[in-house]
Amino acid sequence: MSALDPSQVVAARARIAPHVLRTPLASSHTLSAMTGADVRLKCENLQKTGSFKARGALHRILGLSAAERRRGVLAASAGNHAQGVAYAAAIAGVKATVVMPTSAAIAKVEATRGYGADIVLAGADYAAAFRHAGELARRSRATLVHAFDDDEIIAGQGTVGLEILEDLPDVDVIVVPVGGGGLAAGIAAAVADAPARVIGVQAELASTLQPSLRAGRRVHARPGPTIADGLATPWRMMRGELLRAVTVGEAEIAAAILLLLERATLVVEGAAATTLAACLGPLRRLIAGRKVAVVLSGGNIDVNVLDRILNLGLAEQGRVFRFATVVTDRPGSLAALAAVIGEAGANIKHIQHDRGRLGVGVLETMVTVELETRGSGHVPGIIGRLRAAGYRILREDR
Amino acid sequence: MSALDPSQVVAARARIAPHVLRTPLASSHTLSAMTGADVRLKCENLQKTGSFKARGALHRILGLSAAERRRGVLAASAGNHAQGVAYAAAIAGVKATVVMPTSAAIAKVEATRGYGADIVLAGADYAAAFRHAGELARRSRATLVHAFDDDEIIAGQGTVGLEILEDLPDVDVIVVPVGGGGLAAGIAAAVADAPARVIGVQAELASTLQPSLRAGRRVHARPGPTIADGLATPWRMMRGELLRAVTVGEAEIAAAILLLLERATLVVEGAAATTLAACLGPLRRLIAGRKVAVVLSGGNIDVNVLDRILNLGLAEQGRVFRFATVVTDRPGSLAALAAVIGEAGANIKHIQHDRGRLGVGVLETMVTVELETRGSGHVPGIIGRLRAAGYRILREDR
Repeated sequence: MSALDPSQVVAARARIAPHVLRTPLASSHTLSAMTGADVRLKCENLQKTGSFKARGALHRILGLSAAERRRGVLAASAGNHAQGVAYAAAIAGVKATVVMPTSAAIAKVEATRGYGADIVLAGADYAAAFRHAGELARRSRATLVHAFDDDEIIAGQGTVGLEILEDLPDVDVIVVPVGGGGLAAGIAAAVADAPARVIGVQAELASTLQPSLRAGRRVHARPGPTIADGLATPWRMMRGELLRAVTVGEAEIAAAILLLLERATLVVEGAAATTLAACLGPLRRLIAGRKVAVVLSGGNIDVNVLDRILNLGLAEQGRVFRFATVVTDRPGSLAALAAVIGEAGANIKHIQHDRGRLGVGVLETMVTVELETRGSGHVPGIIGRLRAAGYRILREDR
Repeated sequence: MSALDPSQVVAARARIAPHVLRTPLASSHTLSAMTGADVRLKCENLQKTGSFKARGALHRILGLSAAERRRGVLAASAGNHAQGVAYAAAIAGVKATVVMPTSAAIAKVEATRGYGADIVLAGADYAAAFRHAGELARRSRATLVHAFDDDEIIAGQGTVGLEILEDLPDVDVIVVPVGGGGLAAGIAAAVADAPARVIGVQAELASTLQPSLRAGRRVHARPGPTIADGLATPWRMMRGELLRAVTVGEAEIAAAILLLLERATLVVEGAAATTLAACLGPLRRLIAGRKVAVVLSGGNIDVNVLDRILNLGLAEQGRVFRFATVVTDRPGSLAALAAVIGEAGANIKHIQHDRGRLGVGVLETMVTVELETRGSGHVPGIIGRLRAAGYRILREDR
């Protein structure tokens, strides 16, 4: 692959502009204070289809010849690329068939179908779905639209970089999630003539980028299960364009998702949150005092995953407090415990009353309680009231 | 109160424009398809401080005289108004003291303090905090900034309406949440010379607007606890400006929050979601085929509340499936059950193994299982596999 020219990204923009959102580059007082940089969020989670993928797919599909359009397009994806291709095909009036692995979330399948694509469920994982799409393409002569390994796709994704430069011409650093690498390569091409540095981020569990840059060749990895699942895909070479790459851990990604949700009212998926996580972690010194564009690449997070992240985050902030205590096993003793908790201003989420437990007396019952609190500053007061009322706190977990 | 003139809103806009975001009016394919209207979302959840309240507070505080500025400002609020006043005072270089009820979420207290305001925790509820703020204002001669009952505040909030008209000049209907009524009154003033209809929405549990419009006078209510807590405040008269008001229920508000989160990647608070809920419910016929601006007034939802809403929504979509079954009480029987569940492609969230339960044989154990599924279409397959493996499904709850 030869690096793209900024002019190719400009041309892509002319083609796709009527059909994509020019997403906001939002400043954030809170996130700037937390990172010590002037942080701007490039909100591609608000893009059509919920991710930047619509840009590349539109550029590719709107560029098809009349004959190619008649034969339709094919793609394999479990998520954002599926929706991007389905949306772009609908705009272009082209028939789209999307192969999704059988494990794909029903919500994502329905969202893709909602744009008018035919859905084929095949293969246990992405690789198998991709092979199936290749076979279908050979038979039907439809055009297979690759998720990132395609110059037209990369030029389309690069329009994100053009918009950042227009809104913030003196941007110092652009932080981009790296999955296939199409977004990072495209942005690097778009800003090639500007002094801005482009820094790639991956989830530790899906990291192929750092080893590859270090080895000077493409290193494959079998990624573990990561929240940032959009990043758990092979890597596209971009040495020379991308100057640095960092990785972030799962807890940091979860914390960044919660932070964007609470303090920026934005829903982002794991891959998108890696960039903010990097600004709060490994990039902190590099970005200090600089103007930083943080690319939030998409917002299509599974609600089950988001629910787990909220619970982790609430526990981390002391807003869920779990403890065990022992009450005497007679009528009214649970009511008395609940009354003390209520007076302390906490809400009971779960309570478990467990008689006949080892280490607890015959006439006693172990009670495990999970509380909603107003924050970690609230917890010592709750503990104080419980102790003052004579309860032993056997285990605590905040 | 006399109705404001559009020119007063235009003047407010000139004063506050450098300090507020011109928030997007985003179209949504999915929500338009679901409502049968051309739905545009006015994203005030992305506004500075996370709600439209910053607009009114800025207009009020930037309009203070030099002498008033020296004496500072006071406000009472548990949420959005607190942050709006703190932010506006920081912009104006004015000292702000915000009285928050002792029950305020610590996250909201910290966010308000983050803008540099002094926080006084006083009063069990908003009314008590407001009385306390009044006393402080009398003593300190600081200016008390009311949350809505003030023409300057209303003119500032009305700038939301000007932006909607500029982005969508032929808008037919603007749907606005009504709490104190400042936002609705301001928008009504802003679009007074346009043909657009302004429709107010309240949560059923906090409804004072419909009875008031019906009675032709202000009707007070003691609102119940509602998700849309920003709306549980008194009502400001706006007869003649507001042509219609509707109410929506708690389940509808929760569903709208989940929908915006999953399909628009936007976090909104309960009050903000009432407008979309109304478009999917009582306003459906009125808006059919029309251009509708749905005002999402803010995004500062408590994460504990959001967590409950996600859980409700997941259960409603069949993505959490709970059932009970009975296994024989011998080693390996739980492993066998878990294996069948795994083969069915479901994840175990919780499992409870409950020996010695009424109605279960002496050598049997009741097991209660909570599963994550891929959606309601997945559940019959799970049940089928369990039955085929010989398990009785004793209770089910999807």
